[in-house]
Amino acid sequence: MTFIEKLTKIWEKNNSLVCVGLDPDIDKLPACLKEKDFPIFEFNKAIIDATADIVCSYKPQAAYYQGQNADVELKMTIDYINENYPEVPVILDVKRGDIGSTSEMYAREAFIRYNADAATLNPYMGTDTLKPFLDYADKGSVILCRTSNPSSCELQELIADDAEIYKHVAKLSNTKWNYNNNVMLVIGATFPGELKTVREICPEIPFLVPGVGAQGGDVEAVLKNGLDANGYGLVINSSRGIIYADSSENFAQGARNATIELNNLINSYR
Amino acid sequence: MTFIEKLTKIWEKNNSLVCVGLDPDIDKLPACLKEKDFPIFEFNKAIIDATADIVCSYKPQAAYYQGQNADVELKMTIDYINENYPEVPVILDVKRGDIGSTSEMYAREAFIRYNADAATLNPYMGTDTLKPFLDYADKGSVILCRTSNPSSCELQELIADDAEIYKHVAKLSNTKWNYNNNVMLVIGATFPGELKTVREICPEIPFLVPGVGAQGGDVEAVLKNGLDANGYGLVINSSRGIIYADSSENFAQGARNATIELNNLINSYR
Repeated sequence: MTFIEKLTKIWEKNNSLVCVGLDPDIDKLPACLKEKDFPIFEFNKAIIDATADIVCSYKPQAAYYQGQNADVELKMTIDYINENYPEVPVILDVKRGDIGSTSEMYAREAFIRYNADAATLNPYMGTDTLKPFLDYADKGSVILCRTSNPSSCELQELIADDAEIYKHVAKLSNTKWNYNNNVMLVIGATFPGELKTVREICPEIPFLVPGVGAQGGDVEAVLKNGLDANGYGLVINSSRGIIYADSSENFAQGARNATIELNNLINSYR
Repeated sequence: MTFIEKLTKIWEKNNSLVCVGLDPDIDKLPACLKEKDFPIFEFNKAIIDATADIVCSYKPQAAYYQGQNADVELKMTIDYINENYPEVPVILDVKRGDIGSTSEMYAREAFIRYNADAATLNPYMGTDTLKPFLDYADKGSVILCRTSNPSSCELQELIADDAEIYKHVAKLSNTKWNYNNNVMLVIGATFPGELKTVREICPEIPFLVPGVGAQGGDVEAVLKNGLDANGYGLVINSSRGIIYADSSENFAQGARNATIELNNLINSYR
């Protein structure tokens, strides 16, 4: 089964467009976990067990593991999802992009070492840097288009040949880069107008949408502008808003409640 | 001492603009190393010992370690350089770029976990994604400008407001992003005309120049177009051309010979 097929199945089965971002900061974990051998993994595991029936994917952010010397816990987390909830795809948020021979090593990191279903990619260096990922036909390549952060306008909104740079990325993603029909795009919830524009350019490509929750994106506008013709097409990520919803020992139930709340809000606009 | 000061000192001391890229592919290591406990580290260590007096920096490419489950050997490699050749700066090639809170974790990865002197960064997401790195005033932020790979033209050469995107990156790097005077730029040796253009925009910023050797860049054109007013300003990287110069048990001497050859060629045009 390809990544896109897996995503399509889970959207329907769980009736959810919610992706939980697994970005655990060791300094923010509940006190009850701090003495554990693998506190980050235990934190993720409890949240996964509490939410796997109401999400469409998990998105571990590699920086939190690689910055905290917790590569092992990233591996344990993805293995745990694959073993216990194989129907839920894992998007490894790595934002890689490098020359071909190097990119092959990064694809190996995401798809072989960590066995993720998809990985996020940075398009600044162009086709040959994306190709080693795109060539994994069953895996997803999730390409940065219009990112959710404030300074994203500096390059992404520059206009060349009558189109902003992010539109060039959208067009390439819908054509040249989608030869295996395995491309997704990252478009921030903080820019709903751009979501609409890119949906027009790419009617069938799923969007990974960060920026609801802590970053302030408008859920109604995201749904109105981003859904595909089938009423799906969106993977709406929340990280801090879900994983830190409750800082007590009941954090997993808190994460479940926050996920349900977000999912209900999303589904009320579908 | 800041990264730029360290670089300036070693350029003079070793009379070298050569950076050795430490991109070890386990399948390409000399047979004599394959039974070692840490073959990648042993390979790097021998090359470092053979070249530390004739280089201006080392550039380990993170993908080769993270793709081959060799994070420990990356750490051992950088620790070895810092302990034995503290005068030689280490540029960790990671090409990171992410929203602020995530970028802080990546900066921690490069500068705390691995204790590198500088890290490469992708500018596609803009200022707030670079700032967590730029804020480490003593460390170097090496920003992708005009990369050496064939497809780099797709976005980097698009023209907005009468300037190619890579020129916008160069201008931002010379002004807004250089508030701690710790910015370098990546410009491929395969585009010597662009090297000249960016040198005009950024007279004092050092350039990391990949693409000589295996990628075919022209050393004479690089020197002619890229040197700064002091006859320095370039960190010219070769990876495969040096580390695989000799595939026998004499690989370290082969790497030294290749480094001397490249350094002599470079210095003949200075």
